[in-house]
Amino acid sequence: MTRRTTILGLSGIAAIATLAVWAAAPPAEVPYPANYRDWTHVKSMVIEPGHPLHGTFGGIHHLYGNEAALKGYRDGKFPDGAVIVFDLLEAVSADHTVTEGARKVVGVMHRDAVKFAATGGWGFEGFAGDSRTQRVVGPNAATACFACHQAKRDREYVFSEYRP
Amino acid sequence: MTRRTTILGLSGIAAIATLAVWAAAPPAEVPYPANYRDWTHVKSMVIEPGHPLHGTFGGIHHLYGNEAALKGYRDGKFPDGAVIVFDLLEAVSADHTVTEGARKVVGVMHRDAVKFAATGGWGFEGFAGDSRTQRVVGPNAATACFACHQAKRDREYVFSEYRP
Repeated sequence: MTRRTTILGLSGIAAIATLAVWAAAPPAEVPYPANYRDWTHVKSMVIEPGHPLHGTFGGIHHLYGNEAALKGYRDGKFPDGAVIVFDLLEAVSADHTVTEGARKVVGVMHRDAVKFAATGGWGFEGFAGDSRTQRVVGPNAATACFACHQAKRDREYVFSEYRP
Repeated sequence: MTRRTTILGLSGIAAIATLAVWAAAPPAEVPYPANYRDWTHVKSMVIEPGHPLHGTFGGIHHLYGNEAALKGYRDGKFPDGAVIVFDLLEAVSADHTVTEGARKVVGVMHRDAVKFAATGGWGFEGFAGDSRTQRVVGPNAATACFACHQAKRDREYVFSEYRP
Protein backbone atom coordinates (compact mmCIF):
# COMPACT_ATOMS: atom_id res chain seq x y z
CA MET A 1 0.00 0.00 0.00
CA THR A 2 1.48 3.37 -0.99
CA ARG A 3 1.34 6.36 1.28
CA ARG A 4 -1.06 8.02 -1.17
CA THR A 5 -3.42 5.08 -1.04
CA THR A 6 -3.36 5.08 2.74
CA ILE A 7 -4.28 8.75 2.92
CA LEU A 8 -7.10 8.28 0.44
CA GLY A 9 -8.26 5.30 2.45
CA LEU A 10 -8.35 7.26 5.67
CA SER A 11 -10.13 10.13 3.96
CA GLY A 12 -12.65 7.70 2.64
CA ILE A 13 -13.30 6.25 6.07
CA ALA A 14 -13.61 9.75 7.54
CA ALA A 15 -16.06 10.73 4.82
CA ILE A 16 -18.18 7.64 5.41
CA ALA A 17 -18.15 8.27 9.16
CA THR A 18 -19.21 11.87 8.61
CA LEU A 19 -22.01 10.81 6.31
CA ALA A 20 -23.18 8.26 8.84
CA VAL A 21 -23.35 10.88 11.61
CA TRP A 22 -25.06 13.34 9.26
CA ALA A 23 -27.64 10.77 8.24
CA ALA A 24 -28.30 9.76 11.84
CA ALA A 25 -28.75 13.31 13.19
CA PRO A 26 -32.32 14.48 12.79
CA PRO A 27 -32.61 17.73 10.85
CA ALA A 28 -32.95 20.76 13.11
CA GLU A 29 -36.60 21.45 13.82
CA VAL A 30 -38.14 24.87 14.21
CA PRO A 31 -40.07 24.95 17.50
CA TYR A 32 -43.66 26.19 17.63
CA PRO A 33 -43.51 29.88 18.63
CA ALA A 34 -45.35 29.68 21.95
CA ASN A 35 -46.93 32.96 23.13
CA TYR A 36 -46.24 34.77 19.88
CA ARG A 37 -49.62 36.52 20.19
CA ASP A 38 -48.08 38.51 23.04
CA TRP A 39 -45.10 39.58 20.93
CA THR A 40 -44.88 42.92 19.18
CA HIS A 41 -47.03 43.34 16.10
CA VAL A 42 -44.70 44.31 13.24
CA LYS A 43 -47.10 44.99 10.35
CA SER A 44 -50.10 43.60 8.47
CA MET A 45 -51.27 43.15 4.88
CA VAL A 46 -54.17 41.70 2.92
CA ILE A 47 -53.45 39.54 -0.16
CA GLU A 48 -56.53 39.34 -2.37
CA PRO A 49 -57.69 36.98 -5.12
CA GLY A 50 -55.79 37.73 -8.32
CA HIS A 51 -52.46 38.21 -6.57
CA PRO A 52 -49.82 35.69 -7.76
CA LEU A 53 -49.28 34.54 -4.17
CA HIS A 54 -52.96 34.27 -3.32
CA GLY A 55 -52.97 30.48 -3.51
CA THR A 56 -50.37 30.21 -0.78
CA PHE A 57 -50.70 33.44 1.16
CA GLY A 58 -54.18 34.76 0.37
CA GLY A 59 -55.92 36.35 3.35
CA ILE A 60 -54.94 38.84 6.01
CA HIS A 61 -51.59 38.31 7.62
CA HIS A 62 -49.90 39.81 10.63
CA LEU A 63 -46.19 39.70 11.38
CA TYR A 64 -45.07 39.37 14.99
CA GLY A 65 -41.52 39.50 16.33
CA ASN A 66 -39.93 38.54 19.63
CA GLU A 67 -37.48 40.92 21.28
CA ALA A 68 -34.45 39.59 19.39
CA ALA A 69 -36.32 39.95 16.11
CA LEU A 70 -37.21 43.56 16.94
CA LYS A 71 -33.51 44.25 17.40
CA GLY A 72 -33.02 42.87 13.91
CA TYR A 73 -35.77 45.03 12.45
CA ARG A 74 -34.13 48.06 14.07
CA ASP A 75 -30.50 47.58 13.10
CA GLY A 76 -30.59 45.00 10.29
CA LYS A 77 -28.75 42.28 12.22
CA PHE A 78 -30.96 39.46 13.48
CA PRO A 79 -29.26 37.67 16.40
CA ASP A 80 -29.64 33.95 17.05
CA GLY A 81 -32.94 33.43 18.82
CA ALA A 82 -34.78 35.99 16.72
CA VAL A 83 -38.17 34.62 15.73
CA ILE A 84 -40.61 36.14 13.24
CA VAL A 85 -44.16 34.82 12.93
CA PHE A 86 -46.29 35.22 9.82
CA ASP A 87 -49.84 34.68 11.11
CA LEU A 88 -52.17 34.09 8.16
CA LEU A 89 -55.95 34.27 8.61
CA GLU A 90 -58.81 34.03 6.16
CA ALA A 91 -59.87 37.49 4.97
CA VAL A 92 -63.66 37.64 5.14
CA SER A 93 -65.11 40.33 2.85
CA ALA A 94 -68.67 41.50 3.60
CA ASP A 95 -70.60 44.77 3.83
CA HIS A 96 -67.61 46.89 2.84
CA THR A 97 -65.39 45.41 5.50
CA VAL A 98 -62.61 42.85 5.62
CA THR A 99 -62.53 40.95 8.88
CA GLU A 100 -60.36 38.16 10.25
CA GLY A 101 -61.51 34.59 9.74
CA ALA A 102 -60.06 31.20 10.56
CA ARG A 103 -56.32 30.80 10.89
CA LYS A 104 -54.74 29.24 7.78
CA VAL A 105 -51.15 28.84 8.85
CA VAL A 106 -48.59 30.10 11.36
CA GLY A 107 -45.39 30.64 9.41
CA VAL A 108 -42.15 30.89 11.35
CA MET A 109 -38.63 32.12 10.69
CA HIS A 110 -36.31 31.07 13.52
CA ARG A 111 -32.77 32.44 13.57
CA ASP A 112 -29.89 30.09 14.30
CA ALA A 113 -26.85 30.68 12.15
CA VAL A 114 -25.38 27.21 12.80
CA LYS A 115 -28.42 24.95 12.88
CA PHE A 116 -29.96 26.50 9.80
CA ALA A 117 -26.80 27.45 7.91
CA ALA A 118 -28.11 25.81 4.72
CA THR A 119 -31.01 28.28 4.54
CA GLY A 120 -29.31 31.55 5.34
CA GLY A 121 -29.20 31.02 9.09
CA TRP A 122 -33.00 30.83 9.33
CA GLY A 123 -35.14 27.82 10.01
CA PHE A 124 -38.46 27.99 8.18
CA GLU A 125 -41.62 26.17 9.21
CA GLY A 126 -45.37 26.43 8.91
CA PHE A 127 -47.96 25.10 11.36
CA ALA A 128 -51.34 24.32 9.84
CA GLY A 129 -54.29 26.31 11.18
CA ASP A 130 -54.34 26.31 14.96
CA SER A 131 -52.19 23.21 15.26
CA ARG A 132 -48.93 23.39 17.17
CA THR A 133 -47.68 20.13 15.72
CA GLN A 134 -48.89 19.75 12.14
CA ARG A 135 -45.91 20.91 10.08
CA VAL A 136 -46.44 21.96 6.49
CA VAL A 137 -42.83 22.73 5.49
CA GLY A 138 -40.69 20.11 7.24
CA PRO A 139 -37.61 19.23 5.20
CA ASN A 140 -38.69 21.37 2.23
CA ALA A 141 -37.61 24.74 3.62
CA ALA A 142 -34.97 25.30 0.95
CA THR A 143 -37.42 25.10 -1.93
CA ALA A 144 -40.67 26.04 -0.19
CA CYS A 145 -39.36 29.13 1.64
CA PHE A 146 -35.72 30.03 1.20
CA ALA A 147 -35.84 30.09 -2.60
CA CYS A 148 -38.02 33.23 -2.45
CA HIS A 149 -36.40 34.73 0.66
CA GLN A 150 -33.00 34.68 -1.09
CA ALA A 151 -34.15 37.79 -2.91
CA LYS A 152 -33.74 39.63 0.39
CA ARG A 153 -30.15 38.57 1.05
CA ASP A 154 -29.14 42.16 1.84
CA ARG A 155 -31.77 42.30 4.60
CA GLU A 156 -30.81 38.93 6.09
CA TYR A 157 -33.57 37.27 4.05
CA VAL A 158 -36.40 39.12 5.81
CA PHE A 159 -39.13 40.66 3.65
CA SER A 160 -41.05 42.52 6.34
CA GLU A 161 -40.13 45.87 7.80
CA TYR A 162 -41.36 47.20 11.13
CA ARG A 163 -44.20 49.68 10.68
CA PRO A 164 -43.95 52.26 13.50
CA MET B 1 -86.31 81.84 59.28
CA THR B 2 -87.86 78.40 59.78
CA ARG B 3 -85.71 75.36 60.28
CA ARG B 4 -86.80 74.10 56.86
CA THR B 5 -85.66 77.30 55.17
CA THR B 6 -82.29 77.08 56.88
CA ILE B 7 -81.70 73.57 55.65
CA LEU B 8 -82.64 74.49 52.10
CA GLY B 9 -80.37 77.51 52.32
CA LEU B 10 -77.40 75.40 53.37
CA SER B 11 -78.14 72.87 50.66
CA GLY B 12 -78.19 75.68 48.15
CA ILE B 13 -74.84 77.00 49.28
CA ALA B 14 -73.33 73.51 49.18
CA ALA B 15 -74.68 72.99 45.67
CA ILE B 16 -73.24 76.30 44.48
CA ALA B 17 -69.87 75.49 46.07
CA THR B 18 -69.86 72.07 44.40
CA LEU B 19 -70.68 73.60 41.04
CA ALA B 20 -67.90 76.16 41.48
CA VAL B 21 -65.34 73.42 42.17
CA TRP B 22 -66.64 71.34 39.30
CA ALA B 23 -66.41 74.29 36.92
CA ALA B 24 -62.90 75.18 38.07
CA ALA B 25 -61.45 71.64 37.83
CA PRO B 26 -60.13 70.91 34.35
CA PRO B 27 -61.90 67.93 32.75
CA ALA B 28 -59.94 64.72 33.13
CA GLU B 29 -57.62 64.22 30.17
CA VAL B 30 -56.82 60.90 28.56
CA PRO B 31 -53.02 60.56 28.38
CA TYR B 32 -51.31 59.58 25.13
CA PRO B 33 -50.78 55.80 25.26
CA ALA B 34 -46.99 55.72 25.19
CA ASN B 35 -45.46 52.45 23.95
CA TYR B 36 -48.78 51.01 22.81
CA ARG B 37 -47.03 49.50 19.77
CA ASP B 38 -45.41 47.05 22.19
CA TRP B 39 -48.75 46.02 23.69
CA THR B 40 -50.65 42.94 22.64
CA HIS B 41 -52.38 43.08 19.29
CA VAL B 42 -56.05 42.30 19.88
CA LYS B 43 -57.51 42.17 16.36
CA SER B 44 -57.66 44.02 13.04
CA MET B 45 -60.21 45.02 10.41
CA VAL B 46 -60.45 46.93 7.15
CA ILE B 47 -63.33 49.40 6.64
CA GLU B 48 -63.79 50.11 2.95
CA PRO B 49 -65.49 52.88 0.96
CA GLY B 50 -69.26 52.40 1.04
CA HIS B 51 -69.34 51.46 4.72
CA PRO B 52 -71.43 53.90 6.81
CA LEU B 53 -68.44 54.53 9.10
CA HIS B 54 -65.94 54.98 6.28
CA GLY B 55 -65.83 58.76 6.67
CA THR B 56 -64.61 58.47 10.25
CA PHE B 57 -63.00 55.05 10.43
CA GLY B 58 -62.16 54.11 6.85
CA GLY B 59 -58.84 52.30 6.50
CA ILE B 60 -57.16 49.41 8.25
CA HIS B 61 -57.28 49.49 12.03
CA HIS B 62 -55.56 47.48 14.71
CA LEU B 63 -56.65 47.21 18.32
CA TYR B 64 -53.97 46.98 21.00
CA GLY B 65 -54.47 46.42 24.72
CA ASN B 66 -52.25 46.83 27.76
CA GLU B 67 -52.14 44.07 30.38
CA ALA B 68 -55.12 45.40 32.32
CA ALA B 69 -57.15 45.61 29.12
CA LEU B 70 -56.28 42.00 28.27
CA LYS B 71 -57.67 40.98 31.64
CA GLY B 72 -60.88 42.74 30.65
CA TYR B 73 -61.02 41.00 27.28
CA ARG B 74 -60.59 37.68 29.08
CA ASP B 75 -63.12 38.01 31.89
CA GLY B 76 -65.34 40.92 30.82
CA LYS B 77 -64.31 43.20 33.69
CA PHE B 78 -61.95 46.01 32.70
CA PRO B 79 -60.07 47.28 35.75
CA ASP B 80 -59.02 50.91 36.19
CA GLY B 81 -55.85 51.43 34.17
CA ALA B 82 -57.05 49.33 31.26
CA VAL B 83 -56.21 51.07 28.00
CA ILE B 84 -57.35 50.05 24.52
CA VAL B 85 -55.86 51.67 21.42
CA PHE B 86 -57.61 51.85 18.07
CA ASP B 87 -54.76 52.49 15.61
CA LEU B 88 -56.20 53.63 12.29
CA LEU B 89 -54.04 53.68 9.16
CA GLU B 90 -54.82 54.45 5.56
CA ALA B 91 -55.63 51.26 3.63
CA VAL B 92 -53.71 51.37 0.35
CA SER B 93 -55.24 49.12 -2.31
CA ALA B 94 -53.00 48.17 -5.23
CA ASP B 95 -52.12 45.05 -7.24
CA HIS B 96 -54.56 42.83 -5.36
CA THR B 97 -53.17 43.80 -1.98
CA VAL B 98 -54.18 46.09 0.84
CA THR B 99 -51.21 47.57 2.66
CA GLU B 100 -50.83 49.97 5.55
CA GLY B 101 -50.45 53.66 4.74
CA ALA B 102 -50.16 56.79 6.84
CA ARG B 103 -51.60 56.87 10.33
CA LYS B 104 -54.95 58.67 10.48
CA VAL B 105 -55.68 58.64 14.19
CA VAL B 106 -54.77 56.89 17.42
CA GLY B 107 -58.05 56.36 19.26
CA VAL B 108 -57.89 55.61 22.98
CA MET B 109 -60.22 54.22 25.61
CA HIS B 110 -58.76 54.70 29.07
CA ARG B 111 -60.49 53.09 32.03
CA ASP B 112 -61.01 55.10 35.20
CA ALA B 113 -64.40 54.56 36.80
CA VAL B 114 -64.26 57.78 38.83
CA LYS B 115 -62.58 60.26 36.48
CA PHE B 116 -64.68 59.22 33.52
CA ALA B 117 -67.90 58.28 35.29
CA ALA B 118 -69.96 60.40 32.89
CA THR B 119 -68.92 58.22 29.94
CA GLY B 120 -69.28 54.75 31.38
CA GLY B 121 -65.99 54.78 33.27
CA TRP B 122 -63.99 55.23 30.09
CA GLY B 123 -62.14 58.29 28.89
CA PHE B 124 -62.19 58.60 25.11
CA GLU B 125 -59.66 60.51 23.04
CA GLY B 126 -58.15 60.58 19.58
CA PHE B 127 -54.69 61.78 18.61
CA ALA B 128 -54.37 63.02 15.03
CA GLY B 129 -51.95 61.12 12.81
CA ASP B 130 -48.60 60.61 14.50
CA SER B 131 -49.12 63.48 16.93
CA ARG B 132 -49.02 62.81 20.65
CA THR B 133 -50.61 66.14 21.51
CA GLN B 134 -53.16 67.05 18.83
CA ARG B 135 -56.46 65.94 20.36
CA VAL B 136 -59.45 65.40 18.10
CA VAL B 137 -62.07 64.48 20.69
CA GLY B 138 -61.37 66.67 23.71
CA PRO B 139 -64.54 67.60 25.59
CA ASN B 140 -66.80 65.94 23.01
CA ALA B 141 -66.35 62.34 24.17
CA ALA B 142 -69.99 61.91 25.20
CA THR B 143 -71.35 62.66 21.74
CA ALA B 144 -68.35 61.77 19.56
CA CYS B 145 -67.60 58.38 21.16
CA PHE B 146 -69.77 57.27 24.05
CA ALA B 147 -73.06 57.71 22.18
CA CYS B 148 -72.14 54.75 19.94
CA HIS B 149 -70.30 52.74 22.60
CA GLN B 150 -73.42 52.75 24.79
CA ALA B 151 -74.73 50.00 22.55
CA LYS B 152 -72.15 47.71 24.20
CA ARG B 153 -73.19 48.41 27.78
CA ASP B 154 -73.26 44.68 28.55
CA ARG B 155 -69.61 44.40 27.52
CA GLU B 156 -68.49 47.46 29.48
CA TYR B 157 -68.85 49.57 26.31
CA VAL B 158 -66.10 47.74 24.41
CA PHE B 159 -66.84 46.70 20.83
CA SER B 160 -63.71 44.67 20.13
CA GLU B 161 -63.12 41.10 21.20
CA TYR B 162 -59.72 39.46 21.48
CA ARG B 163 -58.97 37.27 18.47
CA PRO B 164 -56.78 34.35 19.66
